[in-house]
Amino acid sequence: MSLMNVKSYAAGQWIAPDDTAREIESAITGHVIARAGTKGIDAQAMLDHARTIGGPNLRKLTFHDRARMLKALAQHLTENKQALYDISYNTGATKRDHAFDIDGGIGTTFVFASKGRREMPDGHVLSDGDLEQLSRSGSFLGQHICTPLLGAAVHINAFNFPVWGMLEKLAPTLLAGMPAIVKPATATCYVTEACVRLMLEADILPEGALQLVSGSIGDMLDRLDCQDVVSFTGSAATATKLRSNPNLVQNSTRFMAEQDSLNASILGPDAEPGTPEFDLFIKEAATEITTKAGQKCTATRRILAPEDHVDAVIEALSERLSKATVGDPRLEDTRMGALVSADQKRDVLEKLDILGTEAKRVFGAPDDFLINGDDAQTGAFLPPMLYHCTDPDNAQRIHDTEAFGPVSTIMGYRDIGHAVELANRGGGSLVTSLITHDPATARELTLGTAAFHGRLYINDRTSMKESTGHGAPMPHMVHGGPGRAGGGEELGGIRGVKHYMQRTAIQGSPDMLSAITGKWVPGAETHERPAHPFTRKFTELAIGDTLHTQSRTVTLEDIETFAHFTGDTFYAHMDDEAAKRNPFFPGRVAHGYLLISFAAGLFVEPNEGPVLANTGLDNLRFMKPVSAGDAIKVQLIVKAKTPRTPDYGEVRWHVTLTNQDDEKVAEYELLTMNAT
Amino acid sequence: MSLMNVKSYAAGQWIAPDDTAREIESAITGHVIARAGTKGIDAQAMLDHARTIGGPNLRKLTFHDRARMLKALAQHLTENKQALYDISYNTGATKRDHAFDIDGGIGTTFVFASKGRREMPDGHVLSDGDLEQLSRSGSFLGQHICTPLLGAAVHINAFNFPVWGMLEKLAPTLLAGMPAIVKPATATCYVTEACVRLMLEADILPEGALQLVSGSIGDMLDRLDCQDVVSFTGSAATATKLRSNPNLVQNSTRFMAEQDSLNASILGPDAEPGTPEFDLFIKEAATEITTKAGQKCTATRRILAPEDHVDAVIEALSERLSKATVGDPRLEDTRMGALVSADQKRDVLEKLDILGTEAKRVFGAPDDFLINGDDAQTGAFLPPMLYHCTDPDNAQRIHDTEAFGPVSTIMGYRDIGHAVELANRGGGSLVTSLITHDPATARELTLGTAAFHGRLYINDRTSMKESTGHGAPMPHMVHGGPGRAGGGEELGGIRGVKHYMQRTAIQGSPDMLSAITGKWVPGAETHERPAHPFTRKFTELAIGDTLHTQSRTVTLEDIETFAHFTGDTFYAHMDDEAAKRNPFFPGRVAHGYLLISFAAGLFVEPNEGPVLANTGLDNLRFMKPVSAGDAIKVQLIVKAKTPRTPDYGEVRWHVTLTNQDDEKVAEYELLTMNAT
Repeated sequence: MSLMNVKSYAAGQWIAPDDTAREIESAITGHVIARAGTKGIDAQAMLDHARTIGGPNLRKLTFHDRARMLKALAQHLTENKQALYDISYNTGATKRDHAFDIDGGIGTTFVFASKGRREMPDGHVLSDGDLEQLSRSGSFLGQHICTPLLGAAVHINAFNFPVWGMLEKLAPTLLAGMPAIVKPATATCYVTEACVRLMLEADILPEGALQLVSGSIGDMLDRLDCQDVVSFTGSAATATKLRSNPNLVQNSTRFMAEQDSLNASILGPDAEPGTPEFDLFIKEAATEITTKAGQKCTATRRILAPEDHVDAVIEALSERLSKATVGDPRLEDTRMGALVSADQKRDVLEKLDILGTEAKRVFGAPDDFLINGDDAQTGAFLPPMLYHCTDPDNAQRIHDTEAFGPVSTIMGYRDIGHAVELANRGGGSLVTSLITHDPATARELTLGTAAFHGRLYINDRTSMKESTGHGAPMPHMVHGGPGRAGGGEELGGIRGVKHYMQRTAIQGSPDMLSAITGKWVPGAETHERPAHPFTRKFTELAIGDTLHTQSRTVTLEDIETFAHFTGDTFYAHMDDEAAKRNPFFPGRVAHGYLLISFAAGLFVEPNEGPVLANTGLDNLRFMKPVSAGDAIKVQLIVKAKTPRTPDYGEVRWHVTLTNQDDEKVAEYELLTMNAT
Repeated sequence: MSLMNVKSYAAGQWIAPDDTAREIESAITGHVIARAGTKGIDAQAMLDHARTIGGPNLRKLTFHDRARMLKALAQHLTENKQALYDISYNTGATKRDHAFDIDGGIGTTFVFASKGRREMPDGHVLSDGDLEQLSRSGSFLGQHICTPLLGAAVHINAFNFPVWGMLEKLAPTLLAGMPAIVKPATATCYVTEACVRLMLEADILPEGALQLVSGSIGDMLDRLDCQDVVSFTGSAATATKLRSNPNLVQNSTRFMAEQDSLNASILGPDAEPGTPEFDLFIKEAATEITTKAGQKCTATRRILAPEDHVDAVIEALSERLSKATVGDPRLEDTRMGALVSADQKRDVLEKLDILGTEAKRVFGAPDDFLINGDDAQTGAFLPPMLYHCTDPDNAQRIHDTEAFGPVSTIMGYRDIGHAVELANRGGGSLVTSLITHDPATARELTLGTAAFHGRLYINDRTSMKESTGHGAPMPHMVHGGPGRAGGGEELGGIRGVKHYMQRTAIQGSPDMLSAITGKWVPGAETHERPAHPFTRKFTELAIGDTLHTQSRTVTLEDIETFAHFTGDTFYAHMDDEAAKRNPFFPGRVAHGYLLISFAAGLFVEPNEGPVLANTGLDNLRFMKPVSAGDAIKVQLIVKAKTPRTPDYGEVRWHVTLTNQDDEKVAEYELLTMNAT
């Protein structure tokens, strides 16, 4: 294989490494396979390109446009993933590891594409939370909105996931409408470069949306302001240095960090040897040690088991680990590949020396193991290893030393309180798993540990077939943790998109909030037009289009008829004396279901037309009882429109039922699917 | 008035100032009225007290318990507010200013009490967002939860709002379940101390929930960890220093800052002289200059008007300001009081010199104005002042110099784009107001400025009667802003409570999520009991209690009857050919309203009993059409319970309608009010 010259992509140009470039070795052989780095990256030009070209281009698109763009990117990468697999073996990763990095990254992009369409509007402003009533008569209201930050998102990624690590940050950034400047770790930047090249060549992204720094970002952080974001994954030491950057502090530049983490896995007291949970625990613990040769920020570093079961765990886990073939990741029978580099292996060995002061190695020997594959004998390999700490209360280094390799430390706990205490000794982590079949144990462990952990992964015989793994961050769930883990949050569905947006509290009249959010707001202007709104197509309906119906008197006979027809003979409708004893009713009242059924009778346009179906109803509240003799009428207003397919879209109608005194008796939102 | 010895309240003890205490002067007279400070505050003992006594005491209570506690506190302060008024005049504040500080603080506490009851569960775990489907068959799900951080909340407050500044942080902190250590600014700490004393004497708070440092917090920040929070209000310089504290950075300790802000107010191009908006603009601008003598972090520092109207604004605003009597705040005819101290006055005068290099003073003279009141001639008074900058594009100090006093700078803009550019030159602010009657202008200004401003306050003739004021942060809305404003967020309703909680992603089986959240989750255990659940009182119902009904066949006659009875003769129910042309239906189908009405007929227990009323319905979705001949049945499950009054509580039922093939045809949540 010839030497790869890993390029950067800056301000629309591919830039080759210069003579200051760093050499990159193959994890499998230790031989130099690539070089990356330039002295001449112009950080200011890259920022200008992102801010003045990429940002405006992205912000022209709606959330749905950007979601479709992500879907196209993910599809293109899916079609080309074999090329990424091929190049990624050099990082030491097995095909199983590629499923996490490459397929995982693409899957994350698909999820954001899907959530963008389903959970965001087809517009430029995302509403955050509900309308706030700030005035008695409703002429002055509050609504929080999110809009994209106007700067650049600088993504500084770790070496272990050159594809997922980029895409899990990139997908929410682009969906938000921010351009990204991606800086992968040099050790594996050739994989990231290949992925960026695929994405750019597909010509899906607008100009300026994505740039790449293969090497150092130079003084870029000194040039950021309050509209930029830094999203960092890496060591605590680097994070501490970067987040103290005076320019970032001065500008309150958003800095998200995902750093070291002494993740734990707790075997519940109920999960004795012989139970499905015990076997599950062993399986997950082994997976966490061997996947990516333990180079996962979410990998289990500390295994907590009831004191009585520590020996059984050591025995079962050792047996399982002994079957994990270590070696050339390209070989089918290899279970665990290499560490990324000789440097990384050296770092892990140093950390093992530290762990060794408080714990004893009970499985695996770093200087005595077999490497599968003739070509791999000079690579950065280590065997899976297990340490045992017999006095975890008086140990500290096992709770704060992250050996970023295939190693875990087991320790015993006395009771749930002790397990909580030990888990929290990590000082904040990304994930802790609880393997128990007892919901009460899960609740107790959760209440004790939740404040220290960004994610709690609970697994048992019920969920194990479908569970996604202790170490796998899901795009739907927050990834990040307090304290040592960096205090940041990534992913978490649309929460992750908001990390690249500014939340702004908007106060104003209904008309103002309506104009800004693109949704009708109670009190805002409405318009009645000659034709019934059900005769207008999706594209012809305007926000605020309104129908006022005739009124209909509800008779006692109606109530009786409805009760006997439906079978709903609830006493409040049938028994005047009983209804009067009820704190809410003046006597017999009409059924709520009768009211909304009559309302439909009043507002529907019966003839075939663009309204295809009533698909649902939200936030129905009955506000005032309706007695026989009362007359109800309906007001129907187009509140929001969301395209769903080229053929139809969802219309959300604000529906108000009032009585003969114009008092509200019910209010709800009706959903219809309308032909375009 | 005798010299006040302002005490601290640390670890359950009131501690008097010692000989290192600082003297505090009256704003009105300049004479020393109080002293505060101790060398001997034991920061570690205070933290220990909060962490080991206050936190556990608060976490024993539910959200509703804590909300009731806040309400009692607010009621107690309301009864005693005259005492706070009396002492607060010394800070230079008028009675009108007290409405912001004292009444505003109490009102904020009431809002959190109310939101805590209405928007949070009566339990210990707050769900954040919806359930996430992480598996095909639903055996493994995700749910984010929030639980209180386990440390102490350290509140560092500014001098200008000794009561509101404390309570707006304290209310969400206590509601979250965290103990607070309050450190007011020394200049006005005697007011805060009086308020704390009132709260503690009322014996409403559990031990350890509230401590007070009247003076320096010593090395407290060096002792915080990832479970503590610092919430800071004050200058950018101090914020920068504190947030760079190595211990805080090392531990990723949450640090919220609300600091300098060059807030703007923009007069819309439509709001010409003679319009109600022009008059409103002048009125709000004058209020912002004079309230609290301009010592408000939200006060308008930059007034932006169309170039053509700058002169008219100067004229009208000058006229209005000329009527603002400056002087002793205790006198009825005083409109504007004093700055807090001679130091503060000196600081403002220095800032005026800086503004003077780019703008010309067009109203008010700091060395030539009348002070109302004989006793006040030695106080820290300044007159209201207006500056005019004619070249705001080439000025920078007017966009970054916060003169924290009764002064604003007016500048002209050419068009909306220019107004946006100037507003954003502030580098991030707490609030900008847009005074316009044109929704399109409001939208354009919002899209241009939202990313730079934490709040946009839009006002016009429609909302002006009920609007809450440019400068008044509302507890419902986020208070904070990007960049220069500190990048933090406070308030914002329940968002503000979450600032003192950890968000944790929980993954597990339905039973696990149900045990943790206290809500039934689809797939979790259900239990059928002999008696109909409608016969059980609120307190007797358990989460997961279930009813399975008989099934009922829906006939064509039913559909016809329902259509003619309700008037809902929509073609999908009446015209087989038309329905077949519809993409969603196989032919004529039953009305959705018929289905949910029949469902009620199947599940209600008709006799008088603990179910008092059906109050609403949420998230109804029709999933599969029902044709004549299909048979529907209902499953009703208790999903959640929320106490509302001592007499009744709200029960949320998960309702599923299935057909003869056990396919879901509809799903929704039903709300009933049940007697306790």
